[in-house]
Amino acid sequence: MTKEDVEQTAPDVSYEELAAIEHDFEEAELDIIRATTKRFAPLYIKRKAIIDKIPAFWALVLEQAPPELDQFIQPSDSQVFADALTDMSVSRFEIDDPAGSPRSISITFTFSENEYFTNKTLNKKFWYRRSSEDHVTLVSEPVQIDWKEGKDLTNGLNAAVISLWKARAGAAKGTKQSEIPEFKKLLKVIEQSETDEALSFFTWFSFVSDSRWISAEESAEATKKAREERNKPKVDKKEEEPEMVDAEDLELDILSEVHGAGAEIANIIAEDVWPNAIEYYTQSQFDDEELSELDEDEEMDDDSEGEEVDIRALVGKGKTSNSPPPPKKRKA
Amino acid sequence: MTKEDVEQTAPDVSYEELAAIEHDFEEAELDIIRATTKRFAPLYIKRKAIIDKIPAFWALVLEQAPPELDQFIQPSDSQVFADALTDMSVSRFEIDDPAGSPRSISITFTFSENEYFTNKTLNKKFWYRRSSEDHVTLVSEPVQIDWKEGKDLTNGLNAAVISLWKARAGAAKGTKQSEIPEFKKLLKVIEQSETDEALSFFTWFSFVSDSRWISAEESAEATKKAREERNKPKVDKKEEEPEMVDAEDLELDILSEVHGAGAEIANIIAEDVWPNAIEYYTQSQFDDEELSELDEDEEMDDDSEGEEVDIRALVGKGKTSNSPPPPKKRKA
Repeated sequence: MTKEDVEQTAPDVSYEELAAIEHDFEEAELDIIRATTKRFAPLYIKRKAIIDKIPAFWALVLEQAPPELDQFIQPSDSQVFADALTDMSVSRFEIDDPAGSPRSISITFTFSENEYFTNKTLNKKFWYRRSSEDHVTLVSEPVQIDWKEGKDLTNGLNAAVISLWKARAGAAKGTKQSEIPEFKKLLKVIEQSETDEALSFFTWFSFVSDSRWISAEESAEATKKAREERNKPKVDKKEEEPEMVDAEDLELDILSEVHGAGAEIANIIAEDVWPNAIEYYTQSQFDDEELSELDEDEEMDDDSEGEEVDIRALVGKGKTSNSPPPPKKRKA
Repeated sequence: MTKEDVEQTAPDVSYEELAAIEHDFEEAELDIIRATTKRFAPLYIKRKAIIDKIPAFWALVLEQAPPELDQFIQPSDSQVFADALTDMSVSRFEIDDPAGSPRSISITFTFSENEYFTNKTLNKKFWYRRSSEDHVTLVSEPVQIDWKEGKDLTNGLNAAVISLWKARAGAAKGTKQSEIPEFKKLLKVIEQSETDEALSFFTWFSFVSDSRWISAEESAEATKKAREERNKPKVDKKEEEPEMVDAEDLELDILSEVHGAGAEIANIIAEDVWPNAIEYYTQSQFDDEELSELDEDEEMDDDSEGEEVDIRALVGKGKTSNSPPPPKKRKA
């Protein structure tokens, strides 16, 4: 939205007034994230002691994931969770860091010895940062998964992203993406993977950004500038053009992102799956008979995707029957 | 979920342990609702002073409503909002009431003089209550809309629900629904309305409950019982059968509910539309040109429903072109 648009449609309200109230709301939301994190911390410790006693707890929770997350979990991913996922945890690791943000998220998956990869944990961090163009978003670094021979569910995507990430770190400042050989290699792997049936959930560990990577330094500088801009008396404000990034480089950044929904998934896990895990687990404990008595709409959300894996069977709790899904409910 | 199910699948975790941690979580969530309400109260006052200066602010916000709400708003409803909705507000009216719940919600729509109905405000309250079967839900009372001749968007549904509500209040205790003539009349109006194309948003004002009405007395009694149950030493707990309601009466209650998603809509308005109103308004200010530059997925959410009304045109801000929706984005 530009200043002109608002002034055009609402002549009595200035852009500054709207920006100021939005800033107040953002500050209040951060306070609530801090309060929530503090209030729930002891409860998560207490909860862990209980759920550690439940076999395949997190695999069962992820089986019940809401559709927005479930669409990114393939049957082969569910198999890995059922076989080896022993713990999951979420933290707001910058909550007390004045240079960081309560919106930053760290998600850790812990695995037992398994046939797929050698990692014991996969920790994915998301930093809430502001770009020089004044755009705020969660960015992340790719996490290397050490797949065992022939087991790579990402079909080389993870390795190609890691290679590019390392090559970028080693490249001279100002090097264009198109000059980095690993960039072309990644695009080739992406092209190949598009002929595969579906993207593995594990590709999410390679997510970097939905636009481009933003460093801590860039974010600190942009945050400082935004604050100064807010505090300036109105008369001093000049019409500043937002800083532009190299359009070609930005396009290549977007082309090389292997999981566009990475930040969205982080938020769903942190704000829904993690706090509501016991409710999702409880849902998973309904047997088929009880399921069929459930509100049909709710059930459709879970089961309408077609290619579901029966995790209760995978973890050895075998369903007793394979009743067909209920008829689609007529919309009121 | 029954006690047996959990014990069957997780032998080391008792039903009591899970229920206790869920209760702790619920208490913490209520604390956060209280803290959020308190923290945001002055901001909502400040916001109101700004948005009161923006013509058709709430109609523009509702135009941008998330799909879960948008699906219940018909073009004719949007026309009423554009013509006459002057204010909307949400409050947690039982936040400081020890006998009430911070989850209870009051939503008020304020209208200017208009051709549709004579009400100046429509206030819909939702009480968060516990039933004797230990089921918690938001219940409401039907709100009468005084439609002008030939303007009733609910096609008699609102009037029929109000008639039944009054007849029930006047009936002797223990009267079966099936014995109340207004009940059969309502079912007839519901049957007729099912042949109409789509349910008006204004039908929502007739919502009572997604199961059955729960009175304040029943809820207080059930809450007291649940608390006593929790505080009993484990050995004293006897396997109590949950109290059952008359199955036929419950079925009739469900049959006579004219808007099954009533509580869901209340929560979407209170937890999303109300706190994020300025963001939704800002979205509405993008002109077509800027819209086409937006992330196509986001745009699809807003515009893919087909039967949208152009509120900017309705409120006299006319779009300059009618560009076709962008092509559907290929899924990564």
